[in-house]
Amino acid sequence: MTERSETRSAGDPADGRVRIRGWFESLRDRLCEAFEALERCYAGPDAAASKPGCFVRKAWQRPGGGGGVMAIMRGRVFEKVGVNVSTVWGEFSPEFARQIPGAEEDPRFWASGISLVAHPRSPRVPPAHMNTRHIRTTRAWFGGGADLNPIYPLEEDTRDFHDRLRRACDAFDPEWYPRFKKWADEYFFIPHRNEPRGVGGIFYDYLEEEFERGFAFTRAVGEAFLDIYPGLVARRMNDPWSDAERAHQLERRGRYVEFNLLYDRGTRFGLMTGGNPEAVLMSLPPLVAWP
Amino acid sequence: MTERSETRSAGDPADGRVRIRGWFESLRDRLCEAFEALERCYAGPDAAASKPGCFVRKAWQRPGGGGGVMAIMRGRVFEKVGVNVSTVWGEFSPEFARQIPGAEEDPRFWASGISLVAHPRSPRVPPAHMNTRHIRTTRAWFGGGADLNPIYPLEEDTRDFHDRLRRACDAFDPEWYPRFKKWADEYFFIPHRNEPRGVGGIFYDYLEEEFERGFAFTRAVGEAFLDIYPGLVARRMNDPWSDAERAHQLERRGRYVEFNLLYDRGTRFGLMTGGNPEAVLMSLPPLVAWP
Repeated sequence: MTERSETRSAGDPADGRVRIRGWFESLRDRLCEAFEALERCYAGPDAAASKPGCFVRKAWQRPGGGGGVMAIMRGRVFEKVGVNVSTVWGEFSPEFARQIPGAEEDPRFWASGISLVAHPRSPRVPPAHMNTRHIRTTRAWFGGGADLNPIYPLEEDTRDFHDRLRRACDAFDPEWYPRFKKWADEYFFIPHRNEPRGVGGIFYDYLEEEFERGFAFTRAVGEAFLDIYPGLVARRMNDPWSDAERAHQLERRGRYVEFNLLYDRGTRFGLMTGGNPEAVLMSLPPLVAWP
Repeated sequence: MTERSETRSAGDPADGRVRIRGWFESLRDRLCEAFEALERCYAGPDAAASKPGCFVRKAWQRPGGGGGVMAIMRGRVFEKVGVNVSTVWGEFSPEFARQIPGAEEDPRFWASGISLVAHPRSPRVPPAHMNTRHIRTTRAWFGGGADLNPIYPLEEDTRDFHDRLRRACDAFDPEWYPRFKKWADEYFFIPHRNEPRGVGGIFYDYLEEEFERGFAFTRAVGEAFLDIYPGLVARRMNDPWSDAERAHQLERRGRYVEFNLLYDRGTRFGLMTGGNPEAVLMSLPPLVAWP
């Protein structure tokens, strides 16, 4: 059985859990730096009258074990962007244990991950989501995904986003990108609207790779996102936009809310299991319309 | 077994289904008239520069049988208010039939109801919800409820709203108001926030009364709402409000969205069973913030 008590290895820097947790935190730092740099470089509407945003961090504790840090920025490029890193452990409730691989006979778990949702102010800059995680019960696996949710999809952006994710996947297994892209198309779909929530990306879960390989893939997905998304933001962030585009953006954000509250596993899982609602719901857009 | 084929009795005005459906439609007409009258009487902020709103109606068909009419107004007192009347019939899917009383052995059903959600523009005017319905499978029952969701709760409004609902209940059974009030307190609750969604009201379901008595109670709940809510709106609608109050209103509306998409039975039921998403989601507020 995998060792799952955080304290038993918290002091051993060679333990995989310590390393992956540290990596999530360093990725968070680099993502925050990249987004703050975009805030400083901004030269679009109202640039002269506004100041670059900065991330504010807030730590939270989970009563059953562990906790996390929310980093949130309300800026001029990013109306709201949140990057959560959390590392939690403890025991699943009996009801939940039945739904989690490897938790049926032993409800103890350890989980660490990063989750990012960006809602740009400009309707021309695509919102995006990325998250990767590592979970241990009596089994151990990796999961995650990244998808782009443009208000006005542009072929160039969609292509570059997908290309970069494909390169990350191809370095591990040529079958992963097609499989994880298809999974994203199925997962990031809004059944009651019969429409995709964006232009897709990748989604994967229960990836029971050997730790070093799984960890390397987790890093590759994070690096790919860090490599491609800030550039997509920079491409359009200085364009002016119209009131009609803004109104359309607020309406499209409603679809994002509908998906997250009605279908998103992580959101429902987090809220139903006593997660920190402030952290779980940091993904919701700052202003939304159902006109 | 109750007769459930709409066509068999559609021409018989004495059939309970024809009568209750007709009553829902007439209640809708009276509610719309009362709200349009408030729009005309409005004398608050921007009254001189704005025009009174009018309801727009839109019919929709349900592929499996029946349909409804959405009535929606985007006005100056009511930023968005919707009144839906729908009458639907057909067969529940096998999975759903198992969850519905009396549908286990025969999946056919008939259902008619009215549903109202009001989102006033002023943060000082309380949003409200009301719905009543009659459902027939091999069994037959009544359900419904009404609750008030003030941004800034005022004891006077809460007391008057509850008093009027209590009077409606007391005429039938002195135990109903305490029971249905408690049910509302439990139902209109947001577990992940550990807070009520408003100041309550009544909620009831699976009320298997004899038809005439159940129909009379359904009418009494509708009459009570029509009697009390427009008056509560009129009380505060001409008051000015501040930007801070408006910002707080948009944030509180987020709680309403969270409740409806995460927990509300009718919303989830409607969306998961192929209901008209436009009608089901008419309840969502026009503009919402998760700052």
